[in-house]
Amino acid sequence: MSPDERAIRDVVTKWLEASKAGDMKTVLSLMADDVVFMVPGHEPFGKEAFEVASAGNATQSIEGTSEILELQVLGEWAFMRSRLHVKATLPNGCVIERAGHTLTIFRKEPDGRWLLARDANLLTVKS
Amino acid sequence: MSPDERAIRDVVTKWLEASKAGDMKTVLSLMADDVVFMVPGHEPFGKEAFEVASAGNATQSIEGTSEILELQVLGEWAFMRSRLHVKATLPNGCVIERAGHTLTIFRKEPDGRWLLARDANLLTVKS
Repeated sequence: MSPDERAIRDVVTKWLEASKAGDMKTVLSLMADDVVFMVPGHEPFGKEAFEVASAGNATQSIEGTSEILELQVLGEWAFMRSRLHVKATLPNGCVIERAGHTLTIFRKEPDGRWLLARDANLLTVKS
Repeated sequence: MSPDERAIRDVVTKWLEASKAGDMKTVLSLMADDVVFMVPGHEPFGKEAFEVASAGNATQSIEGTSEILELQVLGEWAFMRSRLHVKATLPNGCVIERAGHTLTIFRKEPDGRWLLARDANLLTVKS
C-alpha cells in the first residue's frame, strides 16, 4: 500500500472516530475549505453548512462503519468508493440507521495532508 | 478549454443525444467496460445491468439536460459535478421528471477516448 493510500485510509478512520466522539473540530480539519457535499434531494453544501447541521445534532451519537471498495490515487487527487453504514442515536434514544454507498474525492494539500474535497453520499434510511 | 476538457464535454453531449434518440449502442460505447453506476437505495451496477434496464425502457423517450458545474482533468482521469434534469415519457404518455446532481469520473483510454467510468447519480423524482 502506498503512503498516499495509507494516508487517505487514515483520514477515513479519523473521520469516523471523531464523528463518534462528537469531535467536530477534528472532522472539520479533515475536509478542504472548498469541500462540496452532495446528497439526494438537496442542493450541494459546503463546510459551513456541514458545521451548522452537525451543531444541530450535537447530542447525537453517530457511529459509522466504512468498507472501502475502491481507492485510486491520481497524483494530487484520489477517488474512493465505499459502502457506509451509519447509526445515529437521538437524544430520545431512537436509533436511525442509514446505509449505502459513497463516491468521495480527496485532494492532497501543499503541506502533504490529504483532505476530503467532494463527497456524493447515496445512503438511504434502512427500513 | 483544453482538448481533454472539450472531449469530456462532448461525451456528455453525445450521451444525452443518444439517450434521447434511444441509441443504446452509442450510449454503451461512451462507458468503460468496468463502469460502476451508483444510485441511492440500490447496489452499484455495471454495463450489463445498465443495458438490461435500458432495454426494459426501450419505448420511453428520455430527454436530459446537463449543466456542468465543475470539471477537473487529472491526467488520465477526470471528475465532473453536474446538475442533471431528466424527463422520461412512458409509453402511456405519463411523464416522470427527475432532477439533482451527479458526481462522475471519466477515464482516458489508451486509444485517447474519454469514457464514463464511475457515476454517482443523486437524482430524485420531482414532485
